[in-house]
Amino acid sequence: MTTNERERDFTHLFSETVQETMNNAGYGSWRSISDPAAVSLSFGFPFPESFPNDELVASAEAVFEAEGDVALQYTGGEYASGLSGVVADRARDRGIDCEDDEVILTNGSTHAIDVVSQTFLDPGDLVVTEAPTFMGALSLFRNYGVDIEGVEMDADGLDVDALAADLEARESEGRPLPKLLYTIPTFHNPTGVTLAEDRRKRLLELAAEYEFVVLEDDAYGELRYEGADVPSLAALDDTGLVVRVSTFSKTIAPGIRTGWIVADEELAEEMRRINAGGTNTFTQGVVGRYCEAGLLEENVVDLRESYSERCAHMLACLDEYMPAGADWSDPDGGFFVWVELPEGVDAEEMLPEAVEEGVVYLPGHLFYPDDRGHDCLRISFSHVPLDEMERGIEALAAATRTATSVESTADD
Amino acid sequence: MTTNERERDFTHLFSETVQETMNNAGYGSWRSISDPAAVSLSFGFPFPESFPNDELVASAEAVFEAEGDVALQYTGGEYASGLSGVVADRARDRGIDCEDDEVILTNGSTHAIDVVSQTFLDPGDLVVTEAPTFMGALSLFRNYGVDIEGVEMDADGLDVDALAADLEARESEGRPLPKLLYTIPTFHNPTGVTLAEDRRKRLLELAAEYEFVVLEDDAYGELRYEGADVPSLAALDDTGLVVRVSTFSKTIAPGIRTGWIVADEELAEEMRRINAGGTNTFTQGVVGRYCEAGLLEENVVDLRESYSERCAHMLACLDEYMPAGADWSDPDGGFFVWVELPEGVDAEEMLPEAVEEGVVYLPGHLFYPDDRGHDCLRISFSHVPLDEMERGIEALAAATRTATSVESTADD
Repeated sequence: MTTNERERDFTHLFSETVQETMNNAGYGSWRSISDPAAVSLSFGFPFPESFPNDELVASAEAVFEAEGDVALQYTGGEYASGLSGVVADRARDRGIDCEDDEVILTNGSTHAIDVVSQTFLDPGDLVVTEAPTFMGALSLFRNYGVDIEGVEMDADGLDVDALAADLEARESEGRPLPKLLYTIPTFHNPTGVTLAEDRRKRLLELAAEYEFVVLEDDAYGELRYEGADVPSLAALDDTGLVVRVSTFSKTIAPGIRTGWIVADEELAEEMRRINAGGTNTFTQGVVGRYCEAGLLEENVVDLRESYSERCAHMLACLDEYMPAGADWSDPDGGFFVWVELPEGVDAEEMLPEAVEEGVVYLPGHLFYPDDRGHDCLRISFSHVPLDEMERGIEALAAATRTATSVESTADD
Repeated sequence: MTTNERERDFTHLFSETVQETMNNAGYGSWRSISDPAAVSLSFGFPFPESFPNDELVASAEAVFEAEGDVALQYTGGEYASGLSGVVADRARDRGIDCEDDEVILTNGSTHAIDVVSQTFLDPGDLVVTEAPTFMGALSLFRNYGVDIEGVEMDADGLDVDALAADLEARESEGRPLPKLLYTIPTFHNPTGVTLAEDRRKRLLELAAEYEFVVLEDDAYGELRYEGADVPSLAALDDTGLVVRVSTFSKTIAPGIRTGWIVADEELAEEMRRINAGGTNTFTQGVVGRYCEAGLLEENVVDLRESYSERCAHMLACLDEYMPAGADWSDPDGGFFVWVELPEGVDAEEMLPEAVEEGVVYLPGHLFYPDDRGHDCLRISFSHVPLDEMERGIEALAAATRTATSVESTADD
């Protein structure tokens, strides 16, 4: 299968959306942003010491001892099938009205978003997201040939008034209304901000009025370090239009690749029907046993403590080192801080200097469905040790100062 | 999220293909065909004693010992990333010209088929399959809003002359030509037959001439019990149009849900780009370690011996018990035997009587993209113990005799 054996151009064989997105730089290009010599603040990787290796091996042993071979069959055993119940129980604990059969287990939360997309989206549909939003979701939505509109955010999350005005204008002008709104309302990726409760209620009113699906991505919701809990959209919903996806990637480990969808039974039924291929019942059994032994709750308590310290440290370093003119978000949870650079500084253009100084981040424009975000960047406190984090922020500050002085010189 | 709290009809929110397929009985209805009191010959489940529980736990321990926390990170450790190399090595051992970066690991082979579908298929495209074919693939293709045409098979597999005639007619009449042909050439599901080598070559010529992708599903290819190996389509291909998918579900265990795609590098690059969400690196590490320790090769040798005995036993039972007028396939490998019932007997109509007699099978029409196959059924020798299998075939024979006598009476 080497290409030198033939002279065939495959382009016309690809689907339309693949052809349209083939040269789209936003598509996964962020994966290659790294430098071995620099501190990586780029990715939302959990810190490795948080992974419960021994507990997972012990769970695997316990599952095989209790269930034998059935744990490796297509259907899995009772620990695997019980995992939906664990998810439903934990959803109910958070005030979400949810039956066990309204849970669909998936191979991680991106797979969950994919199943939801396949259930609702046709080419040409309109999807609304926060601007900025999770770049993986943007790539995924682009696979469906939809139009994506990003609505501005502020320190209280999505600007629901701007959304309302946009919806009203679309309706009065006969322009397409959204089929689906994708939001990360709690400890948002990439900004770290949380949608205020009154805005949540207003968003749900808009969903009911204009009849669009609200896809709530709650990957970080359990990792709160400051402030009082805000109910999830699914907990506030009485329309059935909220579909909530989440994952064990941040609370146990990404490598177990196990997530879920919680949706109204009518929606869940169709999602289950079209969901191609099964899930990893081996891992589900291991995770089910881990959760039923109470280990998840213990782990989440430990994680909150560790991440809280990491978050506070990053914010303190930013305070200490960053030059005037830069600003950043103040997250109450999650993994990320969003930095706005001094006026005129472009995060992507600054990246080579930052790598030179010893830090890597993700430029902000990657998180926008359109050409915004060039003066912003995302950094994560989830992964590197505290001392490296400090060196990284010092390097970021140094690069920012250099870029700012170049910019002011250019302005002269 | 209970429906009695609101009066909302969600139907219009679903994507067009979901709406179109909402009441399609072929869609997963087979999952509910079972009866606790009857011998189940329905599903292609591996027999549970074949699962290497202890070896997988030992592999998990060895992975954590060697790699520590990285085994649970998004990227996985060296055993997980080495699994692509294991797959590529094994493909090369089977004569497939394949680089390591032409392998894409997936969450099982149905996920692999889904990625391939998303890469190539637009609504309204034509997909050609064998008739009959794997019902899971049919459901999956329907999600893409494509037209599906099933080409007849005989004891040597897909009738490539019929395919050639159809392609020629389509071209001369200006009707749509296929974008993709899906085939299970070796130990076909559901018939058990294997595509003859000369037909394989002819199929590849047709693919080159009419430029369609050949999606080769090789889930059962390693499980040969009789006869000489036939090269896989990927091994015979020099066009780059063959995309091969396979899985560890039959050679290790379904619960580990790990499969792969092997494709020309240009195709692989786009598939990798659009493939939403990662894979289960925890499981991949465990499987990688299992394979690198040489355990897979040992397991496949054992499996061939066990399944060979099971296959021979099922064929012997069919010979012994089935009434005249029934016919069945004579597989050299895989999991399935395809039974043609005596003239006029409908497999779906016969099912209640068969359950009464103590056996469950899958009616043949489930495996067709159109209204064919009513006089056929699929049985699997992969799962039940030999004595149960014999009772199941006795029951099948009894139900067939009853249905045949009813049919002859009706004819009078």
